[in-house]
Amino acid sequence: MVREKVVLAYSGGLDTSCILKWLIEKGFEVICYMGNIGQDEDFQAAREKALQIGAVKVVIDDIQESFVKEYVWPAINYGLLYENRYLLGTSLARPCISVGLVNCVKENKASYISHGATGKGNDQVRFELTCYTLMPEIKIIAPWRIEEFTKRFEGRQDLLKYAALNGIPVSVTPKAPWSMDANLMHISYESGILENPNNEPPEDLFIMTKSLFNSCNQSVRFEISFEKGIPIALKLANDQIVKHPVGILTTLNKIGGDHGVGRIDIVENRFLGLKSRGVYETPGGTILYQAHTDLEVFCLDKEIYRVKQLLRDRLSDYIYNGFWFSPEGQYVRNCLDLAGEKVQGTVKVQVYKGSVTILGRVSNTTTYNEDLVSMDRHSTFSPQDASGFINIQAIRLKEYHRLQKQNL
Amino acid sequence: MVREKVVLAYSGGLDTSCILKWLIEKGFEVICYMGNIGQDEDFQAAREKALQIGAVKVVIDDIQESFVKEYVWPAINYGLLYENRYLLGTSLARPCISVGLVNCVKENKASYISHGATGKGNDQVRFELTCYTLMPEIKIIAPWRIEEFTKRFEGRQDLLKYAALNGIPVSVTPKAPWSMDANLMHISYESGILENPNNEPPEDLFIMTKSLFNSCNQSVRFEISFEKGIPIALKLANDQIVKHPVGILTTLNKIGGDHGVGRIDIVENRFLGLKSRGVYETPGGTILYQAHTDLEVFCLDKEIYRVKQLLRDRLSDYIYNGFWFSPEGQYVRNCLDLAGEKVQGTVKVQVYKGSVTILGRVSNTTTYNEDLVSMDRHSTFSPQDASGFINIQAIRLKEYHRLQKQNL
Amino acid sequence: MVREKVVLAYSGGLDTSCILKWLIEKGFEVICYMGNIGQDEDFQAAREKALQIGAVKVVIDDIQESFVKEYVWPAINYGLLYENRYLLGTSLARPCISVGLVNCVKENKASYISHGATGKGNDQVRFELTCYTLMPEIKIIAPWRIEEFTKRFEGRQDLLKYAALNGIPVSVTPKAPWSMDANLMHISYESGILENPNNEPPEDLFIMTKSLFNSCNQSVRFEISFEKGIPIALKLANDQIVKHPVGILTTLNKIGGDHGVGRIDIVENRFLGLKSRGVYETPGGTILYQAHTDLEVFCLDKEIYRVKQLLRDRLSDYIYNGFWFSPEGQYVRNCLDLAGEKVQGTVKVQVYKGSVTILGRVSNTTTYNEDLVSMDRHSTFSPQDASGFINIQAIRLKEYHRLQKQNL
Amino acid sequence: MVREKVVLAYSGGLDTSCILKWLIEKGFEVICYMGNIGQDEDFQAAREKALQIGAVKVVIDDIQESFVKEYVWPAINYGLLYENRYLLGTSLARPCISVGLVNCVKENKASYISHGATGKGNDQVRFELTCYTLMPEIKIIAPWRIEEFTKRFEGRQDLLKYAALNGIPVSVTPKAPWSMDANLMHISYESGILENPNNEPPEDLFIMTKSLFNSCNQSVRFEISFEKGIPIALKLANDQIVKHPVGILTTLNKIGGDHGVGRIDIVENRFLGLKSRGVYETPGGTILYQAHTDLEVFCLDKEIYRVKQLLRDRLSDYIYNGFWFSPEGQYVRNCLDLAGEKVQGTVKVQVYKGSVTILGRVSNTTTYNEDLVSMDRHSTFSPQDASGFINIQAIRLKEYHRLQKQNL
Repeated sequence: MVREKVVLAYSGGLDTSCILKWLIEKGFEVICYMGNIGQDEDFQAAREKALQIGAVKVVIDDIQESFVKEYVWPAINYGLLYENRYLLGTSLARPCISVGLVNCVKENKASYISHGATGKGNDQVRFELTCYTLMPEIKIIAPWRIEEFTKRFEGRQDLLKYAALNGIPVSVTPKAPWSMDANLMHISYESGILENPNNEPPEDLFIMTKSLFNSCNQSVRFEISFEKGIPIALKLANDQIVKHPVGILTTLNKIGGDHGVGRIDIVENRFLGLKSRGVYETPGGTILYQAHTDLEVFCLDKEIYRVKQLLRDRLSDYIYNGFWFSPEGQYVRNCLDLAGEKVQGTVKVQVYKGSVTILGRVSNTTTYNEDLVSMDRHSTFSPQDASGFINIQAIRLKEYHRLQKQNL
Repeated sequence: MVREKVVLAYSGGLDTSCILKWLIEKGFEVICYMGNIGQDEDFQAAREKALQIGAVKVVIDDIQESFVKEYVWPAINYGLLYENRYLLGTSLARPCISVGLVNCVKENKASYISHGATGKGNDQVRFELTCYTLMPEIKIIAPWRIEEFTKRFEGRQDLLKYAALNGIPVSVTPKAPWSMDANLMHISYESGILENPNNEPPEDLFIMTKSLFNSCNQSVRFEISFEKGIPIALKLANDQIVKHPVGILTTLNKIGGDHGVGRIDIVENRFLGLKSRGVYETPGGTILYQAHTDLEVFCLDKEIYRVKQLLRDRLSDYIYNGFWFSPEGQYVRNCLDLAGEKVQGTVKVQVYKGSVTILGRVSNTTTYNEDLVSMDRHSTFSPQDASGFINIQAIRLKEYHRLQKQNL
Repeated sequence: MVREKVVLAYSGGLDTSCILKWLIEKGFEVICYMGNIGQDEDFQAAREKALQIGAVKVVIDDIQESFVKEYVWPAINYGLLYENRYLLGTSLARPCISVGLVNCVKENKASYISHGATGKGNDQVRFELTCYTLMPEIKIIAPWRIEEFTKRFEGRQDLLKYAALNGIPVSVTPKAPWSMDANLMHISYESGILENPNNEPPEDLFIMTKSLFNSCNQSVRFEISFEKGIPIALKLANDQIVKHPVGILTTLNKIGGDHGVGRIDIVENRFLGLKSRGVYETPGGTILYQAHTDLEVFCLDKEIYRVKQLLRDRLSDYIYNGFWFSPEGQYVRNCLDLAGEKVQGTVKVQVYKGSVTILGRVSNTTTYNEDLVSMDRHSTFSPQDASGFINIQAIRLKEYHRLQKQNL
Repeated sequence: MVREKVVLAYSGGLDTSCILKWLIEKGFEVICYMGNIGQDEDFQAAREKALQIGAVKVVIDDIQESFVKEYVWPAINYGLLYENRYLLGTSLARPCISVGLVNCVKENKASYISHGATGKGNDQVRFELTCYTLMPEIKIIAPWRIEEFTKRFEGRQDLLKYAALNGIPVSVTPKAPWSMDANLMHISYESGILENPNNEPPEDLFIMTKSLFNSCNQSVRFEISFEKGIPIALKLANDQIVKHPVGILTTLNKIGGDHGVGRIDIVENRFLGLKSRGVYETPGGTILYQAHTDLEVFCLDKEIYRVKQLLRDRLSDYIYNGFWFSPEGQYVRNCLDLAGEKVQGTVKVQVYKGSVTILGRVSNTTTYNEDLVSMDRHSTFSPQDASGFINIQAIRLKEYHRLQKQNL
């Protein structure tokens, strides 16, 4: 009998290693897929581990450039922000990895995808909705939602026992009392000791960013240039210019990290309706977000900006919830691409002790008109017009007052 | 002949002193109104100056508490932010002062209000729309929009000449090459050298906040408690508790100022359609905004929060444009008051080198459920439900994919 | 052993009669609950049938007045409309019935609710979300989603066989080739021959309304008065005045029905993501919707109206999806109640051949100002002000043009 | 001395004839521009009249096709509706005529535009904002806002006297006690006896539509096909097919007019903040609006539809206010064009006694799936999934209930 093929989103960790073994036990032929989106991982070691456990194949897919160009850059251009604060680092990575998974499925003529995402979280939804959108006939195995699996593995101890029993190597480093997810854009932390929303995250949790207290004592200045809302160049203090997308992001991650930029500690609303606590560090993304925001209001027409913000808020929810490739996700991204076309120019930035300070901006696609706005010149402006403007605006207000008085 | 009475919004500066004299020349009886909203002003000296120039009366009105309780606190509760960054410090002061002006008009049976706001700016609109809303029959004299006045006073030199000629005392301090507006919540700077959006604001411009480089080298921690979205107590590191609204704001201004918190440098869209550059420092307001945002997402239902953000964005525009007391301003404020009722609890905050860090939060009006969200417990949660949830969400996506394929 | 108690939402039809028997077979003690919301039903016959099948109790609950006052009237006041056309007749009935179900559960110390809603539809969601909101510990039995049940009853024939076997009386009238749901506000039709969206609904489908061709040949005129957005009086041509809520609605249903008012045939998007075809007749609701809309724009401030429409669209979706009692449902209803407070007055209406014509309106809560708007009088209006208004609006447009030209 | 050239938007009526003469008196060389957008006008007679009064040139510009294709068709595609009811017939014509005016200015090297729109209305704003957007350097003469003019012509009698004095021919038909504006899409009526919002418009006011009582006694059926949201074919009962845009609109105007379709009587909010009463007849537009709405919800993805409606409401306001060519007008039109791309298919329509009934629809760009939605088939649908879907939706609701109970 031919065994059915599963592509497993493999991380090399305890959970997905046990899932790998379990899938093999259940009679599947398992291909492990690892998307390299910049997480700090020994991919070679993971490959060997997977093969040793019994994977028929391990695909290591470097999707860093795609991640930056097709997901992070648009997110910066769109100004995405979930519930006012979260830059969506994980939410953006999920569709990118899912594309890799689906491609791997197609290339290997598999019919299943499996993953180690938990049943209460967002990532299961993001992975699966993306896969279903791209390949509706795909079948998905989510062990953490299968009773047989969850009964067998009620806690970490059960996984460790299973690993020992099956010769699955286990990291000697003790597991941190929280879980994390890393990529080129950010690291997120949740669970464990972070579940108490009044517990301060310990300093040794953070990886990408120094604490404000240990961060560089020298401020740093640089310039970021954007075209159609997308970062195209980073000019450093030494006049070095970085143009490669991955290079721009990693350089800004280094600068931001050294200066303690981009940590947030929030409670957020998951798609499933649970409130959960997350700690994030997004050094380069935070710098880019702020520089882009500055340039955007500088460049965009006032009213287009307002429409854009409405669309942005919708898209932030779509993407957080896993709808990057949905009809509405695609549609709103197209609309926001149109808006971003006019966002062009250069922003001067200073970074120091966690603060991103905008020092100035230039653009040739702005209606900013120094002559017109100047308090020292009349230019083409007739102050008398403002009287008419105000008087007309006041008509409605006066009538409302009249009505209220009349009805007393 | 009885002279008509004008209430002049008087600042004690060169412009409104000349306007005072000019109004007297035009045959008006002028009452000078000074609203004390926390600006650093020698009110006694200003009173004497106005009387010396010829004002029949000078009213100095301490409206600080009203400003904080009726305008700043609601703004914090509503989370107001104009174009993603500006906390509306000036926009909130204008209706508060206008109420004072209108009351002064009524008490003194005057029929005119006059002010020194310029013809290109937002403040003329804010003053006048508020006054018209509160007292539709009021007549307004805005000299900077009257041709006779603007022809006579084409530049600062003309004002200085007029002052000399009329014995109007002029400050010996040379005028800064920018204009500023201060109140308990913030100071705003614009015009002059700031009109070039690529000019970095000079360090000596800032008054409320130290620069990041000169700010305190010791971080500070404190707790802010909110009830119905409104700050009710500030507990300092030494366990001292501040409860008076003005006290909370000024204490946070001091803390924030010492640590370089709350400077922004932006280009914004004025109501009149001009883009203009503004620099703002809002130390206490910035701390309160962040603490409130943290608590708000912690407390509010996910979907109420989304409606609230829509209303917030509308109200931010209304208030920036001068519509605090308009029908829609009142209506949306009422709606947002309803939303804020559930925002209650305490936020732990650390301030250091310009950064406001949220360290934890507690509330008894949150649906945050540590037991439910925990990765270590199943609680009442059935992971199988998530499969159904995802599968149903996927129906529409799969159908869309099917349609696209069919139409290739 | 004590049998567990279920409250079954019972209709008297084949499906819920079989479910009743099946629940008894499964060992439950079943209380049948019938909410009378104005559907044309022989409640006495249904009671006897249920008792005969084995129900321990049948509760017939006349909730007509509650339905009109607490659900239909607010919906009219809010102007609810799903996807631009559907007046939400069924969606409004579901929370009303659910309140009855939950009360029945509490009074009878039951721990289960069961219903006959299908697995693809909206009603299952509306019933269950409302019940869970009102009584989170309730357990729900939805047979049409239970594999054992759906395997046993694959089609109507299986139900008929089961009925015959168990002595369940079956109506001799052959089942219509569509399903319907009726209440005081409307009748909805779907499924069967309606599933082909290009099939014209047969004339004999409609119950509440005459066809345009057979409708009255005499037009009718009447006046509807509203207070705080709620209908308070219907004055007929003969000067008879109807004030009782149920009376107003049924009278307008009669008038509208006689004149063929309020039929729609649409494809709509269900909450589950399926597109489905529905035919609705809502005679009185359609008249009320149009009269209210007329008065509302007449009375409400222009900008409040715009906010209200945003909230209305959100609430329409909430209610369609079953979230009447959700946090956001309650919140937005509160906000819309505030908006409706100013909607007061009387609208003159003519109904004829399916058309609702508004003939005039009066209100003492409108800012409509005949004197001010008149083309024949200047009133307090200065036409010169309009020049200033336009010129200021044009600044942004001219600058945009300048920019585009410069970038050619 | 060379006289400056003005292009006057000329209607042939009393007002613009007097304005023409007055402009000549003021020393201008006047070119009269008449845009033919389908109004019922004797253009030849008007030309002769203008030349006789002293116009140096009369340009009669047939812009009917441009009006339908570039303004009416997009409006149908976008589903534009102002304040829930008005199809924007006049608002759409203004930018179309303004393009003609600006072209005429450029061809004739004029530097002024003049028009007869009144100072309280919307049309002055629409004309001028469009002209300023297209040609910022244009100067505009709006006599009804010039004090010299309005003092001289305080009422109709003054115009008649001036006409008599200057040999300006005056129509012998007495002026109707209201004003009207007509084009291919609609006729609007306002002012005069309509200013009392409780006055029923007299039957002889209506021109395009028969009254319900006198309308055809035979219903009519036809099919409208759309591509990318735009009407492309009208198939009549006799199988005749109309494809030309102007032909489709005029044919539907005839059908709708004969059957009394498309009259509304509303109070609306003008851009200037006044409430005003308008009566409109839009026979063909009403039919197209309803057919398009039917097809649109049939074809569009559920969530795209929601975004589209938000954008639609914004654009309706923009266009009503005169911002068709503004940055935001262009941007939102582009976004809505993207949404409309999937709206394709054919709608069966019946028209009778003022009612537009949709009888069915077909499309190959819909995700409507008869098999999936059918109550008689399970298809790929698993009813069990709905349980998970509901349970997950209920988590938030149950938690909210828990919180409320805990805080009692």
